Amino acid sequence: MKIALIRGDGIGIDVADAAMAVLEATLQKTGQPKPELDEIHAGAAYFQETGQDIEADGEERAEAADAIFLGAIGLPSIRHADGTEISPHLRLRDRFGLYAGVRPVKAYPNAPQRLADPRAAEIDLIILRESTEGLFYSAAAHKRSLVVNDDEVQDILRITRKTTTKLHRFAFDLARKRQNKGFQGRLTCVDKANVFTSLAFFRQIFDEVKTDYPDVLIGYNYVDAQALDLVRKPWDFDVLVTENMFGDILSDLAGGLVGGMGMAACAEIGDHTGLFQPAHGSAPDIMGQDKANPLAAILSGALMLDYLAEKLGNPHLSDAADLINQAVDDGFRNNRLRPIEFGGDMGTRAITKAITDTVSESR
Amino acid sequence: MKIALIRGDGIGIDVADAAMAVLEATLQKTGQPKPELDEIHAGAAYFQETGQDIEADGEERAEAADAIFLGAIGLPSIRHADGTEISPHLRLRDRFGLYAGVRPVKAYPNAPQRLADPRAAEIDLIILRESTEGLFYSAAAHKRSLVVNDDEVQDILRITRKTTTKLHRFAFDLARKRQNKGFQGRLTCVDKANVFTSLAFFRQIFDEVKTDYPDVLIGYNYVDAQALDLVRKPWDFDVLVTENMFGDILSDLAGGLVGGMGMAACAEIGDHTGLFQPAHGSAPDIMGQDKANPLAAILSGALMLDYLAEKLGNPHLSDAADLINQAVDDGFRNNRLRPIEFGGDMGTRAITKAITDTVSESR
Ligand SMILES: CC(C)[C@H](C(=O)O)[C@@H](O)C(=O)O
Ligand SMILES: CC(C)[C@H](C(=O)O)[C@@H](O)C(=O)O
Repeated sequence: MKIALIRGDGIGIDVADAAMAVLEATLQKTGQPKPELDEIHAGAAYFQETGQDIEADGEERAEAADAIFLGAIGLPSIRHADGTEISPHLRLRDRFGLYAGVRPVKAYPNAPQRLADPRAAEIDLIILRESTEGLFYSAAAHKRSLVVNDDEVQDILRITRKTTTKLHRFAFDLARKRQNKGFQGRLTCVDKANVFTSLAFFRQIFDEVKTDYPDVLIGYNYVDAQALDLVRKPWDFDVLVTENMFGDILSDLAGGLVGGMGMAACAEIGDHTGLFQPAHGSAPDIMGQDKANPLAAILSGALMLDYLAEKLGNPHLSDAADLINQAVDDGFRNNRLRPIEFGGDMGTRAITKAITDTVSESR
Repeated sequence: MKIALIRGDGIGIDVADAAMAVLEATLQKTGQPKPELDEIHAGAAYFQETGQDIEADGEERAEAADAIFLGAIGLPSIRHADGTEISPHLRLRDRFGLYAGVRPVKAYPNAPQRLADPRAAEIDLIILRESTEGLFYSAAAHKRSLVVNDDEVQDILRITRKTTTKLHRFAFDLARKRQNKGFQGRLTCVDKANVFTSLAFFRQIFDEVKTDYPDVLIGYNYVDAQALDLVRKPWDFDVLVTENMFGDILSDLAGGLVGGMGMAACAEIGDHTGLFQPAHGSAPDIMGQDKANPLAAILSGALMLDYLAEKLGNPHLSDAADLINQAVDDGFRNNRLRPIEFGGDMGTRAITKAITDTVSESR
C-alpha cells in the first residue's frame, strides 16, 4: 500500500504526522504490512521557497500512489498577486477528477454542543460536496475566469451531466450503504433549482439517476432553506448532495454544530484515486505547538482505509478503519479524549497516543 | 406617499395586508396622511391565469411609486419549462438596481432560541446582501446563462466595480449609523477571496472604500468560516457585507438562529427606489388560514418608513418606524406576541391587531 503524503503548511504537518502514526498502529494491529509513504512537498511555504506550489514531479507521484493524504495547505500571508491563496490542492481535485467530497458530520458524546435541543446529540449526517466543478470550475488556480479587468470580474459556475451523474450515483450508493448500517438513508438534493438553470439541471440529473434507486428515500431542499434547516433540525438529515460552493459552506456550518473543524474529516474521491484530508485549515498561529486537534486528520485516515479496502479488495483495511472510528467514539464517551480546543488538557501528541493506545489494546 | 403594493402569492397576500394595516395605523398615530396604495398584480398564480408574471404596466407603476412593498412570490407547483420558478421579483431587483439587500437578524425576548449559549439572546446583526449581481446576475429570469445544452450548463458570477463600490459605501455608512446607535458598528467583509478572482476583487474594492471610513472597525471572513462563526459566536458580529448568493444562504442561516423566516424582514435599496418584503416564501399550504406570522412583513414596513423618511425628508416617518419596532420588541418582552409558528395562540390577524393596538395606544 502506497500513500502519497502531502503534509503542507502550518498544523497540516502536525496533524498529518498524527494521522500517519495512527494509521501505522492500526495496520500493525490488524496484521497488515506497513504502508509505504511517499512524501511530496507542496504548499505556501514551499511556494515561498521555490516559486512552485508543489514539487516538480509531485503530481505524477501522487497519481502513482494508491491514495493521497493531505494535512493542510495555505498561509494567509503568502498569496498570488490577485489576492487568492496558494492552492495546489484545487489542482489535484481537478486533475484527478476528485468529484465526490465526502464530509461526515457527527456529534460525539462530550464534544461541544452548540444547539439547545437535546436531539443535537443525534446529529450524524454526511454532506457530499461535488469537488471539481460548480463554482470552483472557475477557481483562480484554474485560470478560467470569463472576464477579468479593472471594472468587473466574471467567474463561471459549471454543472456537467457527466460529473453530476457520477456524483448522484455516488450519493445514492452512499445512502443505500447508510441504510444497511441502520441509518434512515434519506438522500436530500440541495440546490437552487428555483433560480438557476445550472442548478435546475443539477436537480434534473438527480431525478434521472433516482429511477435506478427506488429503495432510497429522497428529498429536495434549496440551499438557503437547507442552511436554516441545519440550524433548526439537523437530526432530520442523513445524506445531502450538493454543488461545490454550497457544500463548502454547508459542511463548515454543520461542522460548527458538532465540535468544529477540528473534527471535520474529509474524503475526496475520483474514478482512479482518492485524497484524504482534514477539512480545516493550516492555522499557522498554533503550528508546531502541540495544540492542534488531530482528530479530523485521524478520522480522515479512517476514511482512507475504507476507500483502500474497496480499491485493493482487502476487507482487513475496513476493520482497521472501524478500529479508529471506534477508538474516537469510545474515547469521547469515556472522557479519555479531551482536546485543548474543547477546553481540555490534551495536545496533538496526547490525543494521538490515546488513539494508538486504544487501537493497540483493543481485542 | 405612494406605495406600489405587490401582494403576490400564498401567504404573501395575508402578510402584505397585515403590514399595510400597521402602516396605516402608525401613520395615523404620527399625524401623517394615509399612504396611497397602487396594487400591482404579479406572481405565479397571476402567471398561471395570464401567461405574464406581472401586469403589463406593472413595472412602470412600481417605478412611479415612492417605494414598493412585496408580500411573497412563487408557487412551487407553477414553474418554467427549465424547472425554475416564476420570479418577477428578480427582474425588479435588476431593473431598479436594488443592490443593497438589508437583512436584520435580531433575537427578540421569548422568541425561540436555537443556540445553547445564553449570549444568543444578544444576537443583533445585519446582513447586507448585494442583490443585483454576484451569481444572481445569471438567474434564469435574466436569460444570461453562458452555456445551456444537454451536457452542461454554465452560469456566471459577476462582480462589478460600480455596484460593489456602492454596496461597500452603503455598508460602511450603515456600520457608522449602528455605531451612533450604540452598537459596536464593526463591518465584516464576507467573501471567498482566497479562491476566486471575482471575490478577491470584491475584497479589493472593500479595501479601497475603507480608506474613506477610518472610524469604522472592520474584519474579513471567508464565507465558509462565516457560516461556522454564525453558529459558534453570532453575537460577535454586527454588519456583514457579502455577495448575493452568499447573502441568501447566510441570512437564512442567521434567521434560523433567532426565530426563523417569520421574523426575517428585508429591504432592497437602489439609487432611486426601494423594495420591502419579508424574506420568507409564499407557504401556500397555510395561505388564507390566518396562520402566517406577519411580523417579518410588519418589520419590513418599518424598514420602508425609515427609507421614506430619508427619501422624502420627513423625520416623522422615522418616528413611525420606531413605533413599530418598539411595539414588536415590547410585545415579545411582555408576552403579548405569541405567533402560532412559535407554538403560540395568535394567528395573523391577532398579531396584527396587537401591533396596531400597541401603536395606537402609545404616547
Ligand atoms: C482551502 C480551500 C481551497 C478549500 C475549499 O474552499 O475548497 C477549503 O475551504 C475546504 O473546504 O477544503
Ligand atoms: C425567491 C428567491 C428568488 C429569493 C432569492 O433567492 O433571492 C429568496 O430566496 C430570497 O431570499 O429573497
